Amino acid sequence: MPSDEQAIRDLVATWMDASRNGDVAAVLDLMADDALFLTPGRPPMTKADFAKAASPQAGGKGPRFDGHSEILEIQLMGGWAFMRSRLTVTVTLPDGSPPTRREGHTLTVLRKDGGRWRLARDANLLAPVG
Amino acid sequence: MPSDEQAIRDLVATWMDASRNGDVAAVLDLMADDALFLTPGRPPMTKADFAKAASPQAGGKGPRFDGHSEILEIQLMGGWAFMRSRLTVTVTLPDGSPPTRREGHTLTVLRKDGGRWRLARDANLLAPVG
Repeated sequence: MPSDEQAIRDLVATWMDASRNGDVAAVLDLMADDALFLTPGRPPMTKADFAKAASPQAGGKGPRFDGHSEILEIQLMGGWAFMRSRLTVTVTLPDGSPPTRREGHTLTVLRKDGGRWRLARDANLLAPVG
Repeated sequence: MPSDEQAIRDLVATWMDASRNGDVAAVLDLMADDALFLTPGRPPMTKADFAKAASPQAGGKGPRFDGHSEILEIQLMGGWAFMRSRLTVTVTLPDGSPPTRREGHTLTVLRKDGGRWRLARDANLLAPVG
């Protein structure tokens, strides 16, 4: 069995792969039911909001995502953890317009439920680049 | 002695008061030595960066800050905690230009060191309004 830290690193790798492949169900499976996503200048997004926003991607008609996450810090706190990462995401729309790139840091809280780590709170500080 | 949750609420109230009063030393005293501040599109700021950026304020020559924090969630995790807040900050520059207002959410990790809670990581998702 992987250590808690390795399990969290595996979660991030699975998340990035699933996002790249448009596998929305796999991404949703990595979130706690009460997960909240915080982004600048917008109200928090719930897991249901995330699923709704990603549904065109699940149907193969939405934007394509590619990304790279560099984990800078993982701190275990019993059945909880926080993680700090530097994230780059490239989004390609199906309309043929040039890809857009966003870069920045994330601060994420994770929780271990029934032996599995899941994302619980995520602050996404990415801003457009290039 | 206040509960951990009350101690964290007191920390936030002290922080807002000290910011309002330009008492930079009091704000710095509420941060862990390894504190990191994350904001959109910028590199993380350390405690030393914060002290440097706030030094004109400490000299009474910098911008004035006023703010209101509504704590939405506090989760205790042993000697750690995370907190989610909705924050409004008004900044008034000494040059007489109109005050600017920023609003948004924060995700903050706190740590209890030697019986005292201090801010350890802060993701600030505020965006300009108005």
